[in-house]
Amino acid sequence: MKLTVTQENLSRALSTVSRIANSRGSLPILSNVLLKTVDNQLIVEATNLDVAMSETIGAKIKTEGSITVPARLMQDYVASLPASTLTLEVKDSKLQLTTDHHSSTINGTPADDFPVMPVIEKGDVLEIPGSEFKQTLQQVLFAASSDEARPVLTGLFLHSIDGNLLAVATDSYRLAEKNVMKTDKDISLLIPASSLQDVLRVMKDDNAPVSIQYDDQQARFSVGSVELVTRLIEGNYPDYRRLLPKNSDTTAVLKLSDLQEITKVSSLFAREAAGGVTVSIDEEKQDVSIRSIASQVGENTAVAEAKVSGEAVITMNSRYILDALSAFSGESVSVNVNGKLDPCLLTDPDNDDYLHVVMPVKS
Amino acid sequence: MKLTVTQENLSRALSTVSRIANSRGSLPILSNVLLKTVDNQLIVEATNLDVAMSETIGAKIKTEGSITVPARLMQDYVASLPASTLTLEVKDSKLQLTTDHHSSTINGTPADDFPVMPVIEKGDVLEIPGSEFKQTLQQVLFAASSDEARPVLTGLFLHSIDGNLLAVATDSYRLAEKNVMKTDKDISLLIPASSLQDVLRVMKDDNAPVSIQYDDQQARFSVGSVELVTRLIEGNYPDYRRLLPKNSDTTAVLKLSDLQEITKVSSLFAREAAGGVTVSIDEEKQDVSIRSIASQVGENTAVAEAKVSGEAVITMNSRYILDALSAFSGESVSVNVNGKLDPCLLTDPDNDDYLHVVMPVKS
Repeated sequence: MKLTVTQENLSRALSTVSRIANSRGSLPILSNVLLKTVDNQLIVEATNLDVAMSETIGAKIKTEGSITVPARLMQDYVASLPASTLTLEVKDSKLQLTTDHHSSTINGTPADDFPVMPVIEKGDVLEIPGSEFKQTLQQVLFAASSDEARPVLTGLFLHSIDGNLLAVATDSYRLAEKNVMKTDKDISLLIPASSLQDVLRVMKDDNAPVSIQYDDQQARFSVGSVELVTRLIEGNYPDYRRLLPKNSDTTAVLKLSDLQEITKVSSLFAREAAGGVTVSIDEEKQDVSIRSIASQVGENTAVAEAKVSGEAVITMNSRYILDALSAFSGESVSVNVNGKLDPCLLTDPDNDDYLHVVMPVKS
Repeated sequence: MKLTVTQENLSRALSTVSRIANSRGSLPILSNVLLKTVDNQLIVEATNLDVAMSETIGAKIKTEGSITVPARLMQDYVASLPASTLTLEVKDSKLQLTTDHHSSTINGTPADDFPVMPVIEKGDVLEIPGSEFKQTLQQVLFAASSDEARPVLTGLFLHSIDGNLLAVATDSYRLAEKNVMKTDKDISLLIPASSLQDVLRVMKDDNAPVSIQYDDQQARFSVGSVELVTRLIEGNYPDYRRLLPKNSDTTAVLKLSDLQEITKVSSLFAREAAGGVTVSIDEEKQDVSIRSIASQVGENTAVAEAKVSGEAVITMNSRYILDALSAFSGESVSVNVNGKLDPCLLTDPDNDDYLHVVMPVKS
């Protein structure tokens, strides 16, 4: 292999894929990054066996070839070079990298030992506008569980109902559901949330569409020059829709920023109570108040004006409320409560694309 | 105690002093912050027994008084409140804090138990322009040792020689010395570097002078509305001046950014060798090259043009070189070498206020 490539392009590709290589290595070669010439381009690739990520960049290829080199060293090294043209050449499993004032030799491993990126041969293809997909991931992913004991809850469930494509995630304490777009396909994909965090990380603000090719076992995301292949999670997603409250006895509509502020302040006094704060919705006063008590340090009550119908008192984890509110971007938020042990539904009164459910805690 | 104060002022003072309280608490009350009215102002104060820091802010005092409350909770709480006027009132060792939409009670401890900020009654006073003092700390402090086994090396030595005020720090592997300004005083203060880090943290860019009042045992720094009192370190500072190279057999002058770049790149291959890189100064080629070898991962050579007189090869820790170079701000840097086991002197050829010495490592 012999080629020239710009420092900017190589550095960008290395920083995109190297995180995959660094994060979870069991086999030594998984801490390496693969450099491989294909069709007068250079592919930079890393994998941790669950996920494989590659970026294809322009390069002037003199001799075709491939090698794998330590990802972290290679990334740090190329990033620290000045903007210039780099010459890469493989000799005896060593990568020689030269530029005007620098010449280095990095010991590598032949590419034959590197796990091959899985190919999806038949699979269907789904295309989603970039901004919609990015917003979906930002609004839903954080609600997924990180507890491997229930693998299905560590995924984002992308499925179609009545011509709508829905994305949902839940850790059983809270649930987020986004209506992504209309679709005429019949879709049911359970995608690891961690893989989607990697997809989110490489998404730019250019609104380029995201293409998802999938079969029963894996999915390939294409975002610009980056490709990511992930396994899918096996198992049936819980029938969460029958748990969503259909209507509510009590509803309070208030400014999103007000509810964020009073929840945040109250959460400071809720550390002792594992984050639990008591939300009171008062129809007579037309306000929402949040009370938190820590016997050691003190107590706090914070109030915000609201448009209220009905009365309710419910205790919830303040962190879950704050997480949920960060997913809303409208002016107002609607808090919908039934009994004090029933799920609390948060919605945007001006936009019904997104809903969030927080389970109460016993107080 | 009863008073009103703006959220902005109280939040700023709490964030200034609270780090002292949080960092090293042995007695429970040291994790508290003291609020105390004096002369129609509010003093916010924290201490860890080595250092005491206070900020004085404007307030409308209705009743004089004082209390101590948990520093972290108080800081987080006030920071999360909206910009507004806060009412603070002490009742039965509890601090009641109210604003339009928030009311809280924070359990406190009477101020009688709080260690009194030491007073320097006689002591001399030294005044240093803010920008000079800030630059001095940035250029010198990092060279101090963090090893408590030799306490004198954990300090910055501020002393006068021949009408000049010099600041120096060394951990015995490298040494930084700054000529701060002219002085007609006879000064010899050994100040804990950690206390000066706290001073540096509160210094603004407004070039307000720093006033240092000192006696044999402690020093008080006044920076705007903030005061910091620190103990001084006992013991004699090493006679470092006789170790400074008087003249050099070999000198290379090169662009500061060039030397930074080639050192940084080389350091990536020096991890195995505990950071050691070999610097070669070549009179014939008129360049400086840095070579680093890691048997496992590879090797690197980086070259930069230089104005060279003499020849030398010396092995040094790349981290110490990079630390040193970050203290220079001129266009060029001069590397002065005698034998390969003699200290290497780094200076700015256009400015003789600052010098840095790096000891070689055996290669």
